[in-house]
Amino acid sequence: MRISVLSRQTGVPVATIKFYLREGLLPRGTPISRNQAEYGDLHLHRLRLIRAFTNVAQLDLSTVRELLAAIEDERVPLRDLYEVVNTALYPEHNAADDPDGVDGVRTDVDEFLQQLGWQVDPKGAGRLAHVVATLRHLGCECDMDFFGSYADAAERLAIQELDLLKPEGTVADRAAAVVRTVLLDVALATMRRMAQEHLVAQRFGEPSEHR
Amino acid sequence: MRISVLSRQTGVPVATIKFYLREGLLPRGTPISRNQAEYGDLHLHRLRLIRAFTNVAQLDLSTVRELLAAIEDERVPLRDLYEVVNTALYPEHNAADDPDGVDGVRTDVDEFLQQLGWQVDPKGAGRLAHVVATLRHLGCECDMDFFGSYADAAERLAIQELDLLKPEGTVADRAAAVVRTVLLDVALATMRRMAQEHLVAQRFGEPSEHR
Repeated sequence: MRISVLSRQTGVPVATIKFYLREGLLPRGTPISRNQAEYGDLHLHRLRLIRAFTNVAQLDLSTVRELLAAIEDERVPLRDLYEVVNTALYPEHNAADDPDGVDGVRTDVDEFLQQLGWQVDPKGAGRLAHVVATLRHLGCECDMDFFGSYADAAERLAIQELDLLKPEGTVADRAAAVVRTVLLDVALATMRRMAQEHLVAQRFGEPSEHR
Repeated sequence: MRISVLSRQTGVPVATIKFYLREGLLPRGTPISRNQAEYGDLHLHRLRLIRAFTNVAQLDLSTVRELLAAIEDERVPLRDLYEVVNTALYPEHNAADDPDGVDGVRTDVDEFLQQLGWQVDPKGAGRLAHVVATLRHLGCECDMDFFGSYADAAERLAIQELDLLKPEGTVADRAAAVVRTVLLDVALATMRRMAQEHLVAQRFGEPSEHR
């Protein structure tokens, strides 16, 4: 297919496709004349993948490059592939930025994780402690019990997601696994927004007309 | 308190506090000498609020400004305040970027939302349809049934969150409501990462030593 067809099927403007080609994120097509190249299903798939990461999940290009490399290198085992994704999705957390009182919260978080039986990298616990400390400082009455239902939902949805995984899969299956991790976060956040909008309208009426 | 104490209690560097002062995001302190000013609890609270939005939720300064204005203007009713937050948290979605076949998915999404009884802005449905179409193009076997548990979790967590709301609250209560909406998203995403990490290690072993 020509670049214009590639553009139409994906919703990605031609100029953006050319940018990805120049950046080496998308491999060159097969030249068919001095100014034209032919693209195939692999290009279509790769372009959709880039777009899911940049446009839907708002990841930056260096993260996208890293994800693509890990997906396509089949020597990277699945457990490591998931580690790459998890690292890419955690924004950097610097302990120097932690607010007052984060140490006490961290103790609570560690105990909470132990009760859940989750054995995870301490970086995640540090990040959660930062969020919980910030919430408490800003008047949220949320002790760790409050987060029990969050952990429960997180675990059930993660199981449902991992059950779709084909452990001995192709590169396309590995790509699908990464896409699910990235995009189901967005789907869940979108549904939280919608559920809240619906419930707020039920409790307080529709937003004012003038807005 | 001096600016150095403000910095220590919040984890925000003095240079960044000065930047927020220059940008008018943080009100000036009371001058106590030619080069020093005294700051109070209101500054502490405001700084924590800015930091929660920028550092934890990664919102840009213009969005932060908009959120702060809506929180502090008590003439803005709660339902409109939530609308401002929801709009700020939805990344822009342009229908021109939609992939092929999004129209059929949109029909499925509308039906799904109708079954849930959620009455929401069509923008949310458009955004969800974009995500679902992208997932399907990239090999995710997820029909709308798959998302039933997502909607269920989203609604239960939104109810739990809204139950903390004080409807006739002060500006601090309004701030807390916005902070919950923004930060509980981050908490949930963090816990999804941790649940996945834990489950992947259970199913496929720990990540390789060499990483």
